Amino acid sequence: MVKLSDAALDRTFSALADPTRRALLARMEQADGLSISELARPFPVSLPAIMKHLDVLSDAGLISREKTGRTVACRLTPGPMEEAMAWLARYERFWSESLDRLAVLLDETETPPGKAGEEA
Amino acid sequence: MVKLSDAALDRTFSALADPTRRALLARMEQADGLSISELARPFPVSLPAIMKHLDVLSDAGLISREKTGRTVACRLTPGPMEEAMAWLARYERFWSESLDRLAVLLDETETPPGKAGEEA
Repeated sequence: MVKLSDAALDRTFSALADPTRRALLARMEQADGLSISELARPFPVSLPAIMKHLDVLSDAGLISREKTGRTVACRLTPGPMEEAMAWLARYERFWSESLDRLAVLLDETETPPGKAGEEA
Repeated sequence: MVKLSDAALDRTFSALADPTRRALLARMEQADGLSISELARPFPVSLPAIMKHLDVLSDAGLISREKTGRTVACRLTPGPMEEAMAWLARYERFWSESLDRLAVLLDETETPPGKAGEEA
């Protein structure tokens, strides 16, 4: 794995490891281009705290901020989340294989009671 | 969103935000039930450091450790990664919608040069 991509994934997963930051992303997904004060409204934390969270999200490349006059509009940028999802998707094979193995195991052990009786 | 699930996602994303821990998970995905010393072999870090990383992965529920005699076998447990993936999947709609909007925009702006000339 490339070093740069490693560092990018570190930043992405680290940025996602906070409930307020995840809630901010969810809010941006619902309404595109909200201003910082609109974004901050439903949160019971100070505006400076929200701005720190937005810095972390921006450093991870998860959002972009565009200043027009005195208003800053925030938008999701899909790249890093897609990369995180691609990383996790490698393990989907593992889950489905585990489920397949479990199904085989269940098929093998769940011989119909009648038949098992006949064989005994 | 439920508090408990929030805390679980915090732990999962936080555990994934480290390249050694991600590499450990990748190694477990390749070979199921490796012992800790087998797992640690390719890493240029001390065994205690690896064991700390395994503690973090275990606390996040990403792996299980089973002791048989003096050997501890490590295995992936799919639950938390599936949950992380489910969280990220909410944004897939956003990416595909963004791409759809981009496609529409390109269709609208990319009028064939000949036709644009006729209309002018």
